[in-house]
Amino acid sequence: MPAPIDFYFDFSSPYGYLAAQRIEGLAARHGRTVDWHPVLLGVIFKETGAQPLTQVPLKGDYSRKDMPRSARFLGIEDFRMPSRFPIPTQAAARIVLALKAKNVALSTNVAKALYRAYFFEGRDISDPDVAADVAGRAGADASAMRAAVDDPAVKEALKEEVARAMKAGVCGSPFFIVDGEPFWGLDRLPQVERWLASGGF
Amino acid sequence: MPAPIDFYFDFSSPYGYLAAQRIEGLAARHGRTVDWHPVLLGVIFKETGAQPLTQVPLKGDYSRKDMPRSARFLGIEDFRMPSRFPIPTQAAARIVLALKAKNVALSTNVAKALYRAYFFEGRDISDPDVAADVAGRAGADASAMRAAVDDPAVKEALKEEVARAMKAGVCGSPFFIVDGEPFWGLDRLPQVERWLASGGF
Repeated sequence: MPAPIDFYFDFSSPYGYLAAQRIEGLAARHGRTVDWHPVLLGVIFKETGAQPLTQVPLKGDYSRKDMPRSARFLGIEDFRMPSRFPIPTQAAARIVLALKAKNVALSTNVAKALYRAYFFEGRDISDPDVAADVAGRAGADASAMRAAVDDPAVKEALKEEVARAMKAGVCGSPFFIVDGEPFWGLDRLPQVERWLASGGF
Repeated sequence: MPAPIDFYFDFSSPYGYLAAQRIEGLAARHGRTVDWHPVLLGVIFKETGAQPLTQVPLKGDYSRKDMPRSARFLGIEDFRMPSRFPIPTQAAARIVLALKAKNVALSTNVAKALYRAYFFEGRDISDPDVAADVAGRAGADASAMRAAVDDPAVKEALKEEVARAMKAGVCGSPFFIVDGEPFWGLDRLPQVERWLASGGF
């Protein structure tokens, strides 16, 4: 069985959210599954020196136009730029990681629900209570998820996950690794697709 | 007659070079011409806080893989990452601007020749003598072009061109403006194409 596509994303990344709407369909067309890896862009930005795009001179104005336009380009209607942006995403990422250790399929569903809660329903998933509630509605045990946010072992697991991602070269969100080949950005999905179709190019 | 596509690029930008191989064909499919604007990423980076991609931790390794892969993805064979990179591009930009004031068609041909000299023939176009030689082989008066590099009026014209670009929102290379709509990046060419085809989306 071919390896899954590693999909790295931050819950506060608009392009990550848009990629999340497309990556599973793309993978499935080529007999692949997707391994969802929540990461923390704040940690990665410390290494790369980047800033949240919307806060950068010139790029801020551009990105506020490009994000909804890219959603329209891909035919994704379920996107609304949140009023509070960016947000800390530790709570959401810890919930997904804690769940992933027990039930991968459920953790993926919860990841999708958390992304949708923030980028479509306008919920502030940086609040651990909100994030746990979203996870509960998506089928997880909400009180266990709320506890996971403050669990030192889960905190440590997230730190290690982010460190592993950076060691694998992850420099932004979304980021994909397909059979060892790295692809950064929503706009690399066509390259990912061709790579899967032809085994490299 | 519809307005031309404004195409902003730095002569040391690999993605700009790749876009330069495709933008005129794309424009022509929609009855448009292209207005070539050489800019200086160094000046823009001072505003956005960016660094040359290949020098950024994590992104450096990634970009050295992504640049040739993006060329292959687009079927562009005439691309070789220069051994010296990045380079100052004032000489090339001044030559193109000086020429543009007199003969737009020739200035576009010279711009293409300069890009090709650097990103395919391995010539160091940061050297004013080399840049003037390339311009001469592309049909310009080489000695006039060599003089233009040191001409205070041309230097000032380039400063003004870069300032105008930034005022129009140009935050990187390549950057396109189509009927007032900004698009940043080689990977936005599919959006540019749809925008031209449908008058917006």
